Amino acid sequence: MKKIICLVFFVFFVLNVFAENKIDPLPSWKAGTIKNDIIQFVAVVTDKNNPHYVPPEDRVATFDNDGTLWVEQPIYPQVVFMRERMHKLAANNPEWKRTEPYKSVLRGTKNLTSDDFDVLIAATSADISVEDYQSVVKAWFSEAVHPRYKKHYNQLIYQPMLEVMDYLRANQFKVYIVSGGGQDYIRAFAYDAYGISPEYVIGATGDTSYVYREEQPELIKQSKLLFNCNYKGKPAAIHLFIGKKPIITFGNSDGDKQMLEWTQSGKGKHLMLLVHHDDAEREYAYDYNSKVGTFSKALMREVKTNHWKVISMKNDWKILFPFEQKPSDIT
Amino acid sequence: MKKIICLVFFVFFVLNVFAENKIDPLPSWKAGTIKNDIIQFVAVVTDKNNPHYVPPEDRVATFDNDGTLWVEQPIYPQVVFMRERMHKLAANNPEWKRTEPYKSVLRGTKNLTSDDFDVLIAATSADISVEDYQSVVKAWFSEAVHPRYKKHYNQLIYQPMLEVMDYLRANQFKVYIVSGGGQDYIRAFAYDAYGISPEYVIGATGDTSYVYREEQPELIKQSKLLFNCNYKGKPAAIHLFIGKKPIITFGNSDGDKQMLEWTQSGKGKHLMLLVHHDDAEREYAYDYNSKVGTFSKALMREVKTNHWKVISMKNDWKILFPFEQKPSDIT
Repeated sequence: MKKIICLVFFVFFVLNVFAENKIDPLPSWKAGTIKNDIIQFVAVVTDKNNPHYVPPEDRVATFDNDGTLWVEQPIYPQVVFMRERMHKLAANNPEWKRTEPYKSVLRGTKNLTSDDFDVLIAATSADISVEDYQSVVKAWFSEAVHPRYKKHYNQLIYQPMLEVMDYLRANQFKVYIVSGGGQDYIRAFAYDAYGISPEYVIGATGDTSYVYREEQPELIKQSKLLFNCNYKGKPAAIHLFIGKKPIITFGNSDGDKQMLEWTQSGKGKHLMLLVHHDDAEREYAYDYNSKVGTFSKALMREVKTNHWKVISMKNDWKILFPFEQKPSDIT
Repeated sequence: MKKIICLVFFVFFVLNVFAENKIDPLPSWKAGTIKNDIIQFVAVVTDKNNPHYVPPEDRVATFDNDGTLWVEQPIYPQVVFMRERMHKLAANNPEWKRTEPYKSVLRGTKNLTSDDFDVLIAATSADISVEDYQSVVKAWFSEAVHPRYKKHYNQLIYQPMLEVMDYLRANQFKVYIVSGGGQDYIRAFAYDAYGISPEYVIGATGDTSYVYREEQPELIKQSKLLFNCNYKGKPAAIHLFIGKKPIITFGNSDGDKQMLEWTQSGKGKHLMLLVHHDDAEREYAYDYNSKVGTFSKALMREVKTNHWKVISMKNDWKILFPFEQKPSDIT
């Protein structure tokens, strides 16, 4: 009898381990309410027998980029890129030394507002073809190194979020980036880093002009900003590019508020989440008092009023980056 | 012996009919070079063993709308819509009676330039939420009737092009509309008419403002034009929305020239086609001397220089519209 009981327990244990390994789509997430919320949400909207079922064509997911998919501290990676590029371009733009926000950026002394950021995106991506710009950005990624982690910036992407994006795509979601960063800048690394193709990258965009070089057409980037993609610019860009409301959305800062509101205003089931950077040991701890990726007290009040979900980097994520050991090794 | 020969012939005949029915993806197209070109192109780029193979993520197809996917004569359907809407809105905009292009449009006397068209798109789609605008357009489609065919405008879509779009999607192409028409206007009917979801509709776009009505966020369309989507605006919009060059593209007029050039400038295999309206009996015959859907002599010279393909409506299409008898009935 004892043997049989032992055998039953053993089989149970093996099946359990097997089942857990097989079905856990988010291995880098610690067990808890947030992980459950995400898995439950996907289960419900993909279940044809559930009243909250959403057909595949309406499964739209949007992710902010800076601070949501990759590290944005001590300063947005694109600002580092822009600053370095501005130094290279400064010889041809002597007025920058006298004009804000260029002047302070060149000196490295300015806290950038969202408007400054848009001005700089335009300035540092003008008078270059869209193809050449991609090459410049790619070259920068292969060289520039983060001051703390000593890794390339496109390696500092969050493993738990990669898993969420894979999980959503496996469930026929269309996964978009909707970022205040430059669209062409993000496109230069998004496919390799996140598996996100250019047509799923929405970001701040400058105008282009169409010219011929050696009888071949080229699009040359212009300094005129076409639209920004922060705050209320996010719902506007979502309408422009997608024409549907997302049903699940991830952000981390004040600039994402309207995207979460827009998602929540949809008729069907929806889920809104914000990453909270509360992990000084493994990453950074910041919220209302940070100029980069501000998570204001007002936003925290919105979280409570609207029942948005807050992801604690410290408590919800087993590991942060793909280059760390696999979560199965650490449990 | 005779019996056996008869049987062999019979089997041959049955197999042949079966095979033809099974493999013809473009039944409304007459056998000929254009039909062959399309089928050959798709066969080549989807064949992994062919040196011109294109992976699914790069199979981008772009279609102009007016005159390429639906009837644009005697005047673009959206102009009919805008004129009717302008009459409704004129009471609130008394200055229209004194200002061009509004004045002449209200009188029905003006040949619209591309710039006029953009001004009118903006004027007739402002101060209304994106959702309400869709409802207005949908209501118009269910009422307005084409003067010649006595059908709703969204029924006057080309059956042969529907087949091409289905065929491309079945071969893992992403099928986009890239139109000088208004993006939200086209989105209101594109899914039902063409099976094209909002995120695959690229068109002229006005700005929006983000407001709250009864605590719910709304995007209100503004009269300021964000970008147009004709001539050189087409490659710019293709880069903005897709970030890749199309490999196959269909247009019908001068406004599509740059889209064809942009497609042709891609590195891999590509195919550029223009619909020529040469069928006065079943539709309209017009080209360089038409103000609507101008196919200029300069464009025809580009066709020859660049080896673009011209689709003859008269000679290449068995039927024009879905409501006609099935092509198998007419052969």
